[in-house]
Amino acid sequence: MPLVKFIDEGKEIKVKRGETLLNAAIAADVGLVSECGGRGICKRCRVKVNGEEVLACQTRVERDIEVEVPEKSKPKILKILEKGYEEYRVELNPIVKSFPLQLKAPNLEDNLADTERVRRALGRQVKFPLDTLRCLASELRKKNWNPDISLFEDEVIALKNVDYGIALDVGTTTVVASLVDLKSGKTVKTASSINKQISCGEDILSRIMYSEENGEEGIKTLQRLIIENTNSLISEFEVDRKRVGCMAIGGNTTMGHLFLGLDSKYIRYEPYIPTANDPGIHRAKDLGVDILPNSPLFFLPNRAGYFGGDVVGDILTSDMHRREEISMLIDTGTNGEIVLGNRDWLACCACSAGPAFEGGEVACGVRAMRGAIERIKIGRDSKVRYKVIGDVKPIGICGSGLIDLMAELFINKLVGRRGEFITEADPERIREGEEGKEYIAVPREKSASGKDIFFSEADIKNLLRTKAAMYAATRTLLRNTGFMIDDVEKIYIAGGFGNYINIRNAIIIGLLPDIDVEKYIFIGNGSAQGAKLCLLSDGKRKESAEIAKKLAYIELSVANEFFDEFNSAMFIPHTDIELFPSVVI
Amino acid sequence: MPLVKFIDEGKEIKVKRGETLLNAAIAADVGLVSECGGRGICKRCRVKVNGEEVLACQTRVERDIEVEVPEKSKPKILKILEKGYEEYRVELNPIVKSFPLQLKAPNLEDNLADTERVRRALGRQVKFPLDTLRCLASELRKKNWNPDISLFEDEVIALKNVDYGIALDVGTTTVVASLVDLKSGKTVKTASSINKQISCGEDILSRIMYSEENGEEGIKTLQRLIIENTNSLISEFEVDRKRVGCMAIGGNTTMGHLFLGLDSKYIRYEPYIPTANDPGIHRAKDLGVDILPNSPLFFLPNRAGYFGGDVVGDILTSDMHRREEISMLIDTGTNGEIVLGNRDWLACCACSAGPAFEGGEVACGVRAMRGAIERIKIGRDSKVRYKVIGDVKPIGICGSGLIDLMAELFINKLVGRRGEFITEADPERIREGEEGKEYIAVPREKSASGKDIFFSEADIKNLLRTKAAMYAATRTLLRNTGFMIDDVEKIYIAGGFGNYINIRNAIIIGLLPDIDVEKYIFIGNGSAQGAKLCLLSDGKRKESAEIAKKLAYIELSVANEFFDEFNSAMFIPHTDIELFPSVVI
Repeated sequence: MPLVKFIDEGKEIKVKRGETLLNAAIAADVGLVSECGGRGICKRCRVKVNGEEVLACQTRVERDIEVEVPEKSKPKILKILEKGYEEYRVELNPIVKSFPLQLKAPNLEDNLADTERVRRALGRQVKFPLDTLRCLASELRKKNWNPDISLFEDEVIALKNVDYGIALDVGTTTVVASLVDLKSGKTVKTASSINKQISCGEDILSRIMYSEENGEEGIKTLQRLIIENTNSLISEFEVDRKRVGCMAIGGNTTMGHLFLGLDSKYIRYEPYIPTANDPGIHRAKDLGVDILPNSPLFFLPNRAGYFGGDVVGDILTSDMHRREEISMLIDTGTNGEIVLGNRDWLACCACSAGPAFEGGEVACGVRAMRGAIERIKIGRDSKVRYKVIGDVKPIGICGSGLIDLMAELFINKLVGRRGEFITEADPERIREGEEGKEYIAVPREKSASGKDIFFSEADIKNLLRTKAAMYAATRTLLRNTGFMIDDVEKIYIAGGFGNYINIRNAIIIGLLPDIDVEKYIFIGNGSAQGAKLCLLSDGKRKESAEIAKKLAYIELSVANEFFDEFNSAMFIPHTDIELFPSVVI
Repeated sequence: MPLVKFIDEGKEIKVKRGETLLNAAIAADVGLVSECGGRGICKRCRVKVNGEEVLACQTRVERDIEVEVPEKSKPKILKILEKGYEEYRVELNPIVKSFPLQLKAPNLEDNLADTERVRRALGRQVKFPLDTLRCLASELRKKNWNPDISLFEDEVIALKNVDYGIALDVGTTTVVASLVDLKSGKTVKTASSINKQISCGEDILSRIMYSEENGEEGIKTLQRLIIENTNSLISEFEVDRKRVGCMAIGGNTTMGHLFLGLDSKYIRYEPYIPTANDPGIHRAKDLGVDILPNSPLFFLPNRAGYFGGDVVGDILTSDMHRREEISMLIDTGTNGEIVLGNRDWLACCACSAGPAFEGGEVACGVRAMRGAIERIKIGRDSKVRYKVIGDVKPIGICGSGLIDLMAELFINKLVGRRGEFITEADPERIREGEEGKEYIAVPREKSASGKDIFFSEADIKNLLRTKAAMYAATRTLLRNTGFMIDDVEKIYIAGGFGNYINIRNAIIIGLLPDIDVEKYIFIGNGSAQGAKLCLLSDGKRKESAEIAKKLAYIELSVANEFFDEFNSAMFIPHTDIELFPSVVI
């Protein structure tokens, strides 16, 4: 069998005599691609053999040869590089591909039908949905037999170029849409809004309850709201919608279900079964999403009712599933998800943490918005220094601010290990409020509302419950997999307050495990980023499915162990102080 | 490698150790099937190994074994047996399959999502369209995890049984629908009507012209009419439409285009290019056909603009494409199609024959309907004897009657070889009419209208043109393939007057080649029958695609040879009398 050497790549492979050079390149994994199925149409697979440029798909291997792959023939690479974590490269290979097609005009001798003519040129038995079939004859002739076509899998979804795709992150609270250039991989524009479904309920459970109470109409309403929401974000992009040809969606399991109009009721009750973890690929027109009607639209796959595609997006973004080192991923939010593992295995769990760190159920809590205090420090002089988003008078404190405040109160001994205020430490700021003691963080004269911004013992209890749930989940996951926290090389932080929290303070209050702060890496909105990766790379889309399959899910709601851990974690930083050696008490 | 012997089938095959017995059976082509993808669910692949009954899909081959395949495990066979042609057997394997599924109820340990649970049971990555996805959760629970499902390829098209399919023959003039039981292969009911599009034009060309004149609206109108037509035929079946789950359609290229709403304009002009020869599989809901919304709906594939799926259906029905002997197929009608070949090759052509044999362009011509004279004989006593459909007073003469009449006039020397009347042969019946001589076939007192039913020299000219076109086409096809008529073992007659004509008379007038009458076989409506075959057997559907691919198409409209042949055939029976040795002049 002749030997093919790819010089620059340092790879070589033996192939059957007569095999195409393209197939040899694919087998040797040198990254050579053909967009036209090896028919010599796209001219993407140019290589040099003995200094002469040929198309790999049209060249057959008859004897040993040496091949150079010029830079222009290598797949385009999307570089993923975010502050603080390793760069990795992703091959640009979007699920929808557009390219020009050169057809020969028919005549009496070559009288193939239009569809067969396109199939012959592509060398594939492509399918035509009704709309492209109906305009095919006139379009081919109008374009003088040189149409642009857009392919999704084996389907001609448009007889024009598709330039953009949309990566959508459907959060329970916030929806973020990114317009992505499919050729360059760049995000062109981003738009976000509050999830309009919030009018039917603040959190996942209340949305599910809304759909249960209102039956089929309820499900329809929730679906209509998120679709309207999506369409209005897309309209902000001011782009020709027919040129937007695919959409990838990240979101928790329930948000995905509501987007598709599925009944999410069974997610609520034991054994918490979703209709679909991978609901498959649907079309924009069938869901009412106002882009190219045949656009494929898919979801990052879920793992369970309370472990959704958003977290699979986190994993994909972190790249932990491809690394040798053991790492942990923590996605914080009303529901917290923890993942542990490496390229060989992945285990995960989810817990209901409560909305405290998102500003819910805390008297002065607000979302991370203009006017929110995002950083707080209490000085030795008992003075409170803070930073407000937008540099305006504060309206309240958001999650990162609450973590700071709780940590500062604790290290300044204004609050004890049980979360109780120690009045004598600062009698001016600690007062008796309607529901127990409270601490005046910002006096009324300095707040935007003219009212004191205060922090009560009840608020502390809520925050303790939230941090205890998160921490107990990490502990339970470590125990169940037989690892110690010191085995963990990296901890990726995703979700709600992802980029903003002070890790050190989060460790002090016992929210995050006490390991070297340098090991923590913020990955930002992994759901949106993961959706973008899958939109741009069919390989990443397949990886996301593999991640979901590989994840061993540990159900905490029935684990006694979790409740024990939870109770032990209801202290600052923890009952077992040895778990937090760096925190001096 | 162990050897597997299938005793009754007399087949044996070596397989890899550990291979399933089902795969061995498939490789040995013993006709064993699994409907559940080899997951042991459908229990269809029961076999006996050493006298013990096992499921072939669950049994692995570890050593040489002998296998019996009991009768119940063999595929059901649909026998195709029509008067006069050989029986052949078709494996019942409809494109939509329904079967019950037994799922395990989920629990906290086995918490797969509903879709994944179904996929696991099927052992296949099936897809769920939105509607089945939306009702999946409630349906599984309502049925206590034992749902019925219907699969088309890798898609769950319904969560219920599908019992029926529809075979539709869309003729330019007549539409015939058959309700077919997918389990037994039997036709349960049949309904037919005039093609409602006839209000927009009688024949193919006038329909295309209608769409050209009225643009997009014209195409929409034609499509609406045929869909309404189809739905009203289906409504005659009085069956639960949700239980009708697939449809196969036979029709000429233009009728197929109009059914799909495609622009058929380019079929009219050289080089006569259709949008699609194989337009692919579409869904009932997308076309407005009122059966199960996800029902796959497909067409017998066309070969060219004037050689449609109806004739591919004829070929499939005749089985000529699988026989060793050379045979010819003639589909008569306004457009005539001729096929020549055997299992190794197929050649074909089409000609515009004109509507004379369908009762058009002939003064006394009518369609084969109640009141039409279908048989005529002229006695030695010059008396005309005839048979009327429905045994009523005649209203006119249909195709088979016209062939008889022309032949009888010729052999009784009332008409000469050029088609001219010989008045002195019967001066009572032959008279001078408005447009030349005419022959009184039925005097006014015996006709339904009270007017003479007569046959003019102009009518004869029209019939001569039609028969000359048909005959010239057969001659040109033979010449182009290098065959003589004596090489042809069988001639299959399909289409318009298919079952009714007197072959001998058709030979006398030079319409059909002069070979042994015993070699002629009527196959009836091959379009409807071919559609039924494809509906019931995925194998036949694939065969139909292979037929279309294999057909070498000879374009007559540019063949000088054809025009020469045509002119030579404008005599009775022909200029070259040696071509008709059995016809004594």
